Amino acid sequence: MNVTLRGETRPCRTVTFDTQRNAVLLIEQRLLPHEFKIIATRNFRETASAIRDMIVRGAGAIGATAAYGLAQGARQFRGRDLEKFSAHVETVYQTLQAARPTAVDPVNAMQAVREAMIGGETVEEQQSLAQAAAEEFASDDVRHCEEIGRHGAKLIRNGMSVLTHCNAGWLAFVDVGSATAPMYAAQAAGKKFHVFCDETRPRSQGATLTAWELAQQGISHQIIADNAAGHLMQRGEIDLVIVGSDRTLGRTGEVANKIGTYTKAVLAKRHRIPFYVAIPLSTIDWNLKSGSQIPIEERHEHEVLGAWGVVQTRNSKLGTRIGPRAYVRVANPTSGARNPGFDVTPAELITGIITPAGIFKPAALWRHRRELGFVV
Amino acid sequence: MNVTLRGETRPCRTVTFDTQRNAVLLIEQRLLPHEFKIIATRNFRETASAIRDMIVRGAGAIGATAAYGLAQGARQFRGRDLEKFSAHVETVYQTLQAARPTAVDPVNAMQAVREAMIGGETVEEQQSLAQAAAEEFASDDVRHCEEIGRHGAKLIRNGMSVLTHCNAGWLAFVDVGSATAPMYAAQAAGKKFHVFCDETRPRSQGATLTAWELAQQGISHQIIADNAAGHLMQRGEIDLVIVGSDRTLGRTGEVANKIGTYTKAVLAKRHRIPFYVAIPLSTIDWNLKSGSQIPIEERHEHEVLGAWGVVQTRNSKLGTRIGPRAYVRVANPTSGARNPGFDVTPAELITGIITPAGIFKPAALWRHRRELGFVV
Repeated sequence: MNVTLRGETRPCRTVTFDTQRNAVLLIEQRLLPHEFKIIATRNFRETASAIRDMIVRGAGAIGATAAYGLAQGARQFRGRDLEKFSAHVETVYQTLQAARPTAVDPVNAMQAVREAMIGGETVEEQQSLAQAAAEEFASDDVRHCEEIGRHGAKLIRNGMSVLTHCNAGWLAFVDVGSATAPMYAAQAAGKKFHVFCDETRPRSQGATLTAWELAQQGISHQIIADNAAGHLMQRGEIDLVIVGSDRTLGRTGEVANKIGTYTKAVLAKRHRIPFYVAIPLSTIDWNLKSGSQIPIEERHEHEVLGAWGVVQTRNSKLGTRIGPRAYVRVANPTSGARNPGFDVTPAELITGIITPAGIFKPAALWRHRRELGFVV
Repeated sequence: MNVTLRGETRPCRTVTFDTQRNAVLLIEQRLLPHEFKIIATRNFRETASAIRDMIVRGAGAIGATAAYGLAQGARQFRGRDLEKFSAHVETVYQTLQAARPTAVDPVNAMQAVREAMIGGETVEEQQSLAQAAAEEFASDDVRHCEEIGRHGAKLIRNGMSVLTHCNAGWLAFVDVGSATAPMYAAQAAGKKFHVFCDETRPRSQGATLTAWELAQQGISHQIIADNAAGHLMQRGEIDLVIVGSDRTLGRTGEVANKIGTYTKAVLAKRHRIPFYVAIPLSTIDWNLKSGSQIPIEERHEHEVLGAWGVVQTRNSKLGTRIGPRAYVRVANPTSGARNPGFDVTPAELITGIITPAGIFKPAALWRHRRELGFVV
């Protein structure tokens, strides 16, 4: 999507590969929305660190980063010994995999790259195939998101207000995003609409990342406290909800996503507002038989007890001054917190699942499993 | 309720009057939860400033502060001229009323004090009656909250988890509070239970004030993001919800309260969890015929776009260090926000209204209007 820096607008992907420098280029997402910077990892170990340290996050984005990281690591090898090369590639794979051990996307992405490498008979050929496969993985990610956009854009009509939760935007993928894809496609089709971004406490990805994305793209939007959506729905100010998902169960249509998603689905149902979930096919889990089997990560209580931002002071003479980045403790110092990171929304609350292959009723995923990439 | 300072626990009201110094003593609520301090206003103008500047907030608390402020102002008068005294008292009244012009409690409280003064034949007598009437107003506030506690405590059983939203605690009244009253009464009865405090973005009164109160009282509690209650209800971890109200419609049973209350009521209904609203009788509005007539204040977007707290840095050698108070901008700098301050919960979502006169179905308020203080 577009990024505007010093008045100049140019397209920018979350993750790209610089062949000449053998570097993975990443948007340093930890600095957003207060600073925009692209960093270049010089070797696969730096790429693994970038994944581990959350410079890059989001299923599609870390998948592509791992794919590029594997190609980068393979290309670092000097020599012609295929056996030594294979051992080296294994080290690269393990290093990248260990950077985010619970994520499935880096594993899938790197499998694809490794399978492509089998066709090469020399180290050089395999290096070249790895690079091409990584590029293909990234392009596929973009294309899938564009397909989500093509299907989902039909849901957005002129004058609508759309609610979204957390960040399932282009920063979470290589480009375009999942929940945001219909918005970008609708904008490209000339439609006028407004987006409400849930701030998405405790980590505020809606207020920081999604709002930044929409601002860069020039889409009309406002941030709201997570508490406000119910009131806005009650007053008829929200027409459509689109969110992403971390894991969608192919057998039941249940959707695991950022904490608070379930609440928005319950509210949407009450107000008969369509509630859609936008996902690439890789998000579908064909194995689990019930949402209650999805482990819900309990995250650190500091996320709930405070907030990260930049210190801002306002002065009638000097105006607003921006200070250093800081964590402020908001809550009572002697109190603790519960911090479940995700929740599960049942199929009955979901109007449809927007995939690259079309929009499906959640209960219909299983029936359409072959066209949705189910592999026995 | 109790406050523990340097290991010493003592009872403390939100508002009291120091007759000897003719001073209103107030907990400086803007410093909570990071610092506990009681300030003494030396004259009625300082008392008005304390109301205006939010040193004291909450319906019952500002009512009592205004009552004490009127007595304080009356007692500042030197001389015997009743006419001059009346003019002076009028100035005091106007000054205190102007400090929070939309609030109804200061007006009601000061009316009660002025009516009591009529009985006095000299300046001195009237001053003395004003003081006694202000004390009575404050005592009534405490007694009403205690009655709410007595009725509401029956709802809390051993082992329960109770959810509350925002701060309808003793800091919002003279003592005891409304939504918290049943908790304090249940604790006094020896019951064991756990409280989840919604942090209550954007102003975080749950994470700051309610959590501080519960910690001072030694009640088991945890703060949660406003997004988390739905998930906890889904997992069966919440048994009861008790909230306060800013305005409850006597004719319809609709409840206006802090933004996010409606969402919790919708969730509670879905999960068949009892949802109670605790209020003193002064909260009941017998005039309005529909919740849609309640004006919903749109507050400043800075509340949503950032957070207030104390800067905290952690260092493996030095441990956690607490820095100065600050506002951090969390959100994307080029995005704006919507910030409705309140929402309205319909009667069908409310299990009961806990009042000093007993617990009523919301639809039954009107039928019981005479015993609930309705005046034609």
